[in-house]
Amino acid sequence: MGDLFADRLIERARERASRVIVGLDPNLERFPQFLQQRLRAEPTEACLEAVLVEFNAAVIEAAADQAVGFKPQAAFYEQYGFAGLRALHATIALLRERGALVIMDAKRNDIAHTAGAYATAWLAPRHPLFGTPNLWQVDALTINGYLGSDGVRPFMETNPAAGLFVLAKTSNPSSGELQDLLLRDGGSVAEKMAELAALWGRDALGRCGFSNVGVVVGATYPEEAARLRAIAPHTPFLMPGIGAQGGSLQAVLAGSGAGRLGAYAASSRGVMYPFRPEALSGPDWRSRVSPLIASAARELRQAIQRVLEG
Amino acid sequence: MGDLFADRLIERARERASRVIVGLDPNLERFPQFLQQRLRAEPTEACLEAVLVEFNAAVIEAAADQAVGFKPQAAFYEQYGFAGLRALHATIALLRERGALVIMDAKRNDIAHTAGAYATAWLAPRHPLFGTPNLWQVDALTINGYLGSDGVRPFMETNPAAGLFVLAKTSNPSSGELQDLLLRDGGSVAEKMAELAALWGRDALGRCGFSNVGVVVGATYPEEAARLRAIAPHTPFLMPGIGAQGGSLQAVLAGSGAGRLGAYAASSRGVMYPFRPEALSGPDWRSRVSPLIASAARELRQAIQRVLEG
Repeated sequence: MGDLFADRLIERARERASRVIVGLDPNLERFPQFLQQRLRAEPTEACLEAVLVEFNAAVIEAAADQAVGFKPQAAFYEQYGFAGLRALHATIALLRERGALVIMDAKRNDIAHTAGAYATAWLAPRHPLFGTPNLWQVDALTINGYLGSDGVRPFMETNPAAGLFVLAKTSNPSSGELQDLLLRDGGSVAEKMAELAALWGRDALGRCGFSNVGVVVGATYPEEAARLRAIAPHTPFLMPGIGAQGGSLQAVLAGSGAGRLGAYAASSRGVMYPFRPEALSGPDWRSRVSPLIASAARELRQAIQRVLEG
Repeated sequence: MGDLFADRLIERARERASRVIVGLDPNLERFPQFLQQRLRAEPTEACLEAVLVEFNAAVIEAAADQAVGFKPQAAFYEQYGFAGLRALHATIALLRERGALVIMDAKRNDIAHTAGAYATAWLAPRHPLFGTPNLWQVDALTINGYLGSDGVRPFMETNPAAGLFVLAKTSNPSSGELQDLLLRDGGSVAEKMAELAALWGRDALGRCGFSNVGVVVGATYPEEAARLRAIAPHTPFLMPGIGAQGGSLQAVLAGSGAGRLGAYAASSRGVMYPFRPEALSGPDWRSRVSPLIASAARELRQAIQRVLEG
């Protein structure tokens, strides 16, 4: 992981003609009926872990060629305690074995000393005491910048090659309650956050012209995406909200910036669950689900490329 | 845990004449030499877990009578992978066995669906699939409100008895980069966040007159504490920054509000490590460290009470 995250991100985007980041958000109710039944028959931590990992493995294999990278959402694993955390650990291992880019969506944040501990958890190459390889290490992490620079710097210092995505304008309906408020000196809170992120990432520019410090911008807010792109021309945008949340491809275009390489659409439900669970009650679920997931990822990839190239 | 967190918090504060929340932030370099040596002799996950839990157990036992509750900082456990998470799990168990109030400092945040998963992880009484008791359940959780109400409501709905502390004005030097910015319609970002927290907690008032939705206000900013108290009279304040960060007892007074019962000073390093590690190289570390920790907690408790009563 010597190269900057930004360079690896842009390189893959070019190679694969893709701007798709596939979310890995396990939602057992939407899993194939076969896996749900297995867990009902054996309601144990070990079975839960196995079911989570098996389904993720199917998604990863089916979508990998279409995707720039994967984005596991920490909350969906944390909710299942140790079984969920072991599944997350195994998922990171699967992704690393494939050489896939891993963006951990954990929205961590704290003050200096403590932010450093979160950075150690997710970004450090080695265990802080034993010096053994850190098996939780990911390529990039989402963070919340509400605490300002001394809550962000430790993430950059712990591993200067790692990427960060700072929440600027989130995809949810209520994001404007704070983020849209206008400041006395001009601009909104979200715009100020993007400005800060650009400042923090100024000295972490890759050869590609983009910074290692990105922002999260909901694809549900295309006008804001255009404004933030003007404020932060060198900042990669991670754009959730396509699909289930109603985000638009136009927002991805508006956020795409130089060479149309700056915006990455994160989609979870649309890619992971393009099937009815009831239709997959047999042990052949994986062979049946793989082409559906591959198609969903390909269609999203192609739809974005058409808009970017159109 | 039927009673509202706010009522249990205020009741204990009254009973114990204390406003001290003891942080549980393991920092191995400051542990008694004896424990450090044990870990150097046996650098394994199992030994790391045991050392973390043994030291926490000593702190908890020594400080419990002086404290309103305890605040483990999730980051310091997360950084050690599974060993750290198992130690956190065991620490929560120790605290619950004693009936101590547990405020998990995890600053979690996300959009609705995902915030619900974090709420399930930390606040739900039962495992979401198996219905077994949730051994990660704590009494209250710190959260980051940057995403607005639909990132907060799931925490309130998952367990209406649980407490929340929303970051308003954090204790760190750079907190003002975003939080002090003035809004066009008046007040600062931090003040707006406190206003939102008061709104979110309006229907979650306890018998005590305080809400289950609190805010985090750094004890390093006494003037801001006074302003936020005026904005949010029914909102409990969790106030980190006393001690190592230079926070003042005057800030706790300024934040204390009705009956002087609304502000809680969170102290970690000052209470956990009132000794030189080198001085504790023998197996009798615990009997030697306990009175020092108890004194440090008592002195902080008494110093705050003198200011509040003075």
